[in-house]
Amino acid sequence: MRNCWYVLAWSHEVAPGALFARRVAGESLVVYRRADGSVAALENRCPHRHAPLAMGRLEGDDLRCMYHGIKFDAEGRCIEVPGQGATPSALCVRSFPVVERKRWIWVWTGDAAAADAALIPDTFSLDSPRWRYEPAYLHYQANHLLIADNVLDFSHLSYVHEKTLGGTAAIANARPQVEKLPNGVHIHREVKNTAPSPLHQRLGMPAGEVDRWWTYDYLLPGVLLLDSGVRPSNGAPGKQLHFHSCQAIVPESETTSHYYFMQAHDFDLDDGALTHSLHEGVVAAFHEDKAMIEAQARLIAESAPAPMIGLPMDAALTLYRRLHDAALARD
Amino acid sequence: MRNCWYVLAWSHEVAPGALFARRVAGESLVVYRRADGSVAALENRCPHRHAPLAMGRLEGDDLRCMYHGIKFDAEGRCIEVPGQGATPSALCVRSFPVVERKRWIWVWTGDAAAADAALIPDTFSLDSPRWRYEPAYLHYQANHLLIADNVLDFSHLSYVHEKTLGGTAAIANARPQVEKLPNGVHIHREVKNTAPSPLHQRLGMPAGEVDRWWTYDYLLPGVLLLDSGVRPSNGAPGKQLHFHSCQAIVPESETTSHYYFMQAHDFDLDDGALTHSLHEGVVAAFHEDKAMIEAQARLIAESAPAPMIGLPMDAALTLYRRLHDAALARD
Amino acid sequence: MRNCWYVLAWSHEVAPGALFARRVAGESLVVYRRADGSVAALENRCPHRHAPLAMGRLEGDDLRCMYHGIKFDAEGRCIEVPGQGATPSALCVRSFPVVERKRWIWVWTGDAAAADAALIPDTFSLDSPRWRYEPAYLHYQANHLLIADNVLDFSHLSYVHEKTLGGTAAIANARPQVEKLPNGVHIHREVKNTAPSPLHQRLGMPAGEVDRWWTYDYLLPGVLLLDSGVRPSNGAPGKQLHFHSCQAIVPESETTSHYYFMQAHDFDLDDGALTHSLHEGVVAAFHEDKAMIEAQARLIAESAPAPMIGLPMDAALTLYRRLHDAALARD
Repeated sequence: MRNCWYVLAWSHEVAPGALFARRVAGESLVVYRRADGSVAALENRCPHRHAPLAMGRLEGDDLRCMYHGIKFDAEGRCIEVPGQGATPSALCVRSFPVVERKRWIWVWTGDAAAADAALIPDTFSLDSPRWRYEPAYLHYQANHLLIADNVLDFSHLSYVHEKTLGGTAAIANARPQVEKLPNGVHIHREVKNTAPSPLHQRLGMPAGEVDRWWTYDYLLPGVLLLDSGVRPSNGAPGKQLHFHSCQAIVPESETTSHYYFMQAHDFDLDDGALTHSLHEGVVAAFHEDKAMIEAQARLIAESAPAPMIGLPMDAALTLYRRLHDAALARD
Repeated sequence: MRNCWYVLAWSHEVAPGALFARRVAGESLVVYRRADGSVAALENRCPHRHAPLAMGRLEGDDLRCMYHGIKFDAEGRCIEVPGQGATPSALCVRSFPVVERKRWIWVWTGDAAAADAALIPDTFSLDSPRWRYEPAYLHYQANHLLIADNVLDFSHLSYVHEKTLGGTAAIANARPQVEKLPNGVHIHREVKNTAPSPLHQRLGMPAGEVDRWWTYDYLLPGVLLLDSGVRPSNGAPGKQLHFHSCQAIVPESETTSHYYFMQAHDFDLDDGALTHSLHEGVVAAFHEDKAMIEAQARLIAESAPAPMIGLPMDAALTLYRRLHDAALARD
Repeated sequence: MRNCWYVLAWSHEVAPGALFARRVAGESLVVYRRADGSVAALENRCPHRHAPLAMGRLEGDDLRCMYHGIKFDAEGRCIEVPGQGATPSALCVRSFPVVERKRWIWVWTGDAAAADAALIPDTFSLDSPRWRYEPAYLHYQANHLLIADNVLDFSHLSYVHEKTLGGTAAIANARPQVEKLPNGVHIHREVKNTAPSPLHQRLGMPAGEVDRWWTYDYLLPGVLLLDSGVRPSNGAPGKQLHFHSCQAIVPESETTSHYYFMQAHDFDLDDGALTHSLHEGVVAAFHEDKAMIEAQARLIAESAPAPMIGLPMDAALTLYRRLHDAALARD
């Protein structure tokens, strides 16, 4: 998909005065901040001899290719060719619409005229005094849809994350409600009278009976907004743990992906150790997914093609893949 | 070739309670022992989302995929889908006929109905009180036929193994007898009044004149059974050294192979140091082959195609390649 | 291109009694010295089973394949097959015309009858009492033409080598004279009243105003002969620094290249520290080119194809690419 907003970076990854390179949906981009702090994203390729502009030099708001010195402004217009007065208008670099919002930098890789910032989903917990988190990023050796499959079916929490985020088979046994949204899937799963996860216990939840829930949207082209938590069952006294997670799964190439994520808590806001412990627990669990999904990707790549076999638990991912394919066909 | 027995592992590689993964003739397999010790080999791919079952969990004699919890019995039948009563019969994993015999585990990769254990060659020295050895394994970055070529022409002993198993050019100069077998090639080579190999001398053979011999079958799809030895020439007094070697060359993919091997001695059975010294000598020599054959494979891969030029010394390998191609055509 | 002389090695890379392997224009070669010191270059592939001859053994002026013992003379004729009287004339290895001249060994990869040593350019400074240098070599992960582009446009000195060989934008702003030669391009660029490069200053040039010049031929299939230097401007007193550089850019494969180079000085001939400092400065600068060109090659390989946009500064490289393509078409 090209006509959509992808997360390009965490805000802190694009430091003032520095050039940042990342490939998004097959496009190699060079990213930097203008003097006013706003973010520019250009094709990372000088049109002259195809040198990477990310090896260039930032000069004010402009970017000079450090192979032969050709200089471009932040909109990609050529403004200087050494030893040459005129700057041919064909000698321009594609610039990409960018929006920085709540600590994520978004890029539009399609038709610039269609880039409507209102299409960016509300990642409120990324920048709110009511929530605390630490940012995380993983690079994946797998197609982005294999990662989407993973987040669209939390029955894997019982198995992949048995010793971290998940726990008993009760999660997998519960059937989620799945609703189609115009641009994604809404999923609600809850499990009553079950055990808290090992991570919940590390965060202070007593080992007694609890109710757990996960309510989330997974939106094209790969944004997950997840409300989840755990509370004592049957109205028993005790604190509930309430989380909000923003995640973005972004294709880098056909076989590699970016994964931006965080899990925020809205309790004990001033307990930095708890914030860090939650972060570490989630990162460890996401490495469990990564090990499984990358092994799955390698197996698929080395095997003779064979169909996957659909099961009721795949309702959400099947729905999402259909939406994705339809969006791709319109793209 | 698919309709044949391949060595899948040394018995000790498949430990009780553990999952073992290996690719044989392009098939990725997961292997484990049932409670009764018998070996199960299944396709290493969950039919649901193609996760590797080798990342799963052994539960009694059954295997649970640890992505979404689907469980299979040792015959590959699905016996549990979390959150779902029925288990669709299409959701099955291919199981492979397996025979464990004399410390090698064999797998049949073709039509299961044709898997006749009587076709497995007699690797007697692998498990006999009359023979001693240590087991060995090498992974090759080369097509299995390049390794077969190597063992089918021992004239390479004079050159590749000049300082280990071989020695003088007398071995290469001797012409072997080559006979066609229904399923392979029988080869006999002997050299009289020559020098013992450097390895023979390390094993205690005096440096005087010796006779050496190699008598072996190389059987489809790649099993070598080799009787060899050295004795003082002309009936002179002194001990003979007598060896038996079982070797299996197994395709992993078009460009990689497995090599299982050992060299057993039937003298000084209680001399563990001698057993170990023989093992180390043979492993060192097999690394000499590996260096040559992998370099050959790289050169072939990077070069423009060109025919090889057949010589009288290639009689056995030419015969074997013909048998192999005919078997492949029937397969 | 095949019908041309390529640099195969620095003389010192081919040591007496040793086998040296290098791939030139897709041909894998094994190279060694005969007893009389002359260099033999053979195809690095035994015609029997395609084992690399570079893993063989030099026996006098002959080369024995150490897989099955077949022996070739320095012209590639088979002179021994173990265990076989006759040596089939088809069992020969291609031999390549070689000329060793002024510390470079040249090889002709095309039709041997056309190999005229008079076509080798005059690399006088490689072996002259009037010049001093240290030899250098780099292996490139890039097509040779991307490296040729680099040396054909010294405007990159202002940017890639801003802190080493180059300096101000004055170099890029100066327009060179470009002339077509029968087998290459002649280029002259000079800059008056500019600053000495950082390297010049390290070599003792005071920081005042200087004139700089570069006069060079770049000859098919990739030989650069460069006269360059710096002197005080406007006839001011002070020493000039005068250099001569021989460079050869040689395709290894479509995506990799060899780069042989040196920069010689004709002043302070007995100052070994200066020779070494010049060498180190040039090697450091050539690593700057390598970083840029290999990044450019990776970017081109991973990007959708797009045309490069020609500029006046590309006059020489455009001319050279045309000559190259014409030579290739004739080849």
